[in-house]
Amino acid sequence: MKTRVTELFSINVPIIQAGMVWVSGWKLASAVSNVGALGMIGAGSMKPELLREHLQKTFSATKLPFGVNVPLLRGDIDDLIAVILQEHVEIVFTSAGHPGRHIEKFKRAGCKVVHVVANVKQALKAEETGCDAIVAEGFEAGGHNGIDEITTLALIPQVVDAVKIPVIAAGGIADGRGMLAAFALGAEAVQVGTRFAATVESSAHDVYKQKIVEADDGDTVLTYHHILPVRAVRNPFMEQVQKEETQKGMTRERMMELHAKGRERKGIFEGNWEEGEMEMGQSSGLVHDIISAAEVVKRMMNEFESTKAKIFDHTK
Amino acid sequence: MKTRVTELFSINVPIIQAGMVWVSGWKLASAVSNVGALGMIGAGSMKPELLREHLQKTFSATKLPFGVNVPLLRGDIDDLIAVILQEHVEIVFTSAGHPGRHIEKFKRAGCKVVHVVANVKQALKAEETGCDAIVAEGFEAGGHNGIDEITTLALIPQVVDAVKIPVIAAGGIADGRGMLAAFALGAEAVQVGTRFAATVESSAHDVYKQKIVEADDGDTVLTYHHILPVRAVRNPFMEQVQKEETQKGMTRERMMELHAKGRERKGIFEGNWEEGEMEMGQSSGLVHDIISAAEVVKRMMNEFESTKAKIFDHTK
Repeated sequence: MKTRVTELFSINVPIIQAGMVWVSGWKLASAVSNVGALGMIGAGSMKPELLREHLQKTFSATKLPFGVNVPLLRGDIDDLIAVILQEHVEIVFTSAGHPGRHIEKFKRAGCKVVHVVANVKQALKAEETGCDAIVAEGFEAGGHNGIDEITTLALIPQVVDAVKIPVIAAGGIADGRGMLAAFALGAEAVQVGTRFAATVESSAHDVYKQKIVEADDGDTVLTYHHILPVRAVRNPFMEQVQKEETQKGMTRERMMELHAKGRERKGIFEGNWEEGEMEMGQSSGLVHDIISAAEVVKRMMNEFESTKAKIFDHTK
Repeated sequence: MKTRVTELFSINVPIIQAGMVWVSGWKLASAVSNVGALGMIGAGSMKPELLREHLQKTFSATKLPFGVNVPLLRGDIDDLIAVILQEHVEIVFTSAGHPGRHIEKFKRAGCKVVHVVANVKQALKAEETGCDAIVAEGFEAGGHNGIDEITTLALIPQVVDAVKIPVIAAGGIADGRGMLAAFALGAEAVQVGTRFAATVESSAHDVYKQKIVEADDGDTVLTYHHILPVRAVRNPFMEQVQKEETQKGMTRERMMELHAKGRERKGIFEGNWEEGEMEMGQSSGLVHDIISAAEVVKRMMNEFESTKAKIFDHTK
């Protein structure tokens, strides 16, 4: 299956595994790349030298293309970028910040650069800056989220109409039905997070994986609205945050107090149900088992094809 | 094009025009029904005798099926239902409340009953109660909205997996791409609001229609979270509400003070940009002109078919 995104990355399957903190190290990324999709290292939870180790291990574990996701707001962003360039990573996804300051370095090194956006204005800016593609991510996505609260279904066609570069849809996609929906909206690939977080190769804690499997449709909650929104499962800690925010509002200072102190590590990596932030998207309600990353890709592609065939039969 | 929904309502086109306060009277409903889709009277802004007048005028203006949307929380709900039954309406969509108390009356009169839901639990309850179908409406929809904030893309497949009755997708759908996406997710029809609100036959004020055309992707805002959420365009009044809610939180009492006093009438029917609530969905960013209802249906169907063909060509 060919789209401009599969050609850009030289991959066979238009599925990208989202770079996720405490979830996507070399094991997950290489497992995804080895079946023809695009694996991604999530640098967000790695210090520069740990990132180097994961990059080297991924290169050993797969001969196929993979990428790395870098949150640009990191204090040590220049060190992270230095490692990425020294290790000759060819595909870089940037998020949480503006790519303008850094894109030149990546382009000079021959990297393909993709920026993650949450509205049309950011998409146009990323295109103007020289990005090769964009990920447009909707409100239903897990983890950090745009403040505009635009959903994937509303966002993708508006972004597709606005830019010429290819659009990768993210947020709410966990199966072949969501993938086909994204293509109907004009996306040329999908980025999938939560479904890959609950795989054998995900480096997250088993308790966290199990909570994804158990989550129902309304079990995630968005907090820190208008500041730095985060979507995670509704656990004791997030309920407390939501209650406080609803009753008293939320300031940036108070958010930093609550969100900091390794909440993501605690939730995702240590499996602490009471006190951690277990980030996951609304598609967690579609995840019912912990399987291999290869099986995720296989199932999605099979369901994509069978859904396509069904629609053709039923809507003549 | 046949689905279980087109067969249920004896319509030719699986597009349902949402019943909208101050927007969908007999003119819009009959225009939609006359081209083979399903027109709906929005009873929410009508007193019982005005509803009777609109129903009689719709029967005069079309020989084809149409329906009526009734918000069950209305104080005079029994009078509204009496009018619907006396006028022999055959299709009833219920929203904002639980259909249990009223469904028997409708079923005894031979009505098809559809309930609007925003999560899987409500969908299962509606099915159990005897509804013939459900509308599953996502967070991106305009007007009143579920408190769970589940988006259409995440909601539809989860609801489709849970119930046996047919599912109509609503929220964020304004063109043939969104319609095809909804079908990919398992819906058997779409309910479209905002796109039909900006038509010639819509009874809304011209200023309101123009504001839909002008709205960009991030121009709507959801307020009254956790109480009775409403999505409307970000105008001076809604900005004030959002600011107050973000800084101080929102109580039910305060919401009633703000939302009451005919805010919807003021915004939608009187075109008061400063003080009204101009309800619209995130799909307003996809609406670029004020056209006839027939043209909306024609364009959607053409785009549905062309998008389908394109996907088949490109994803072999």
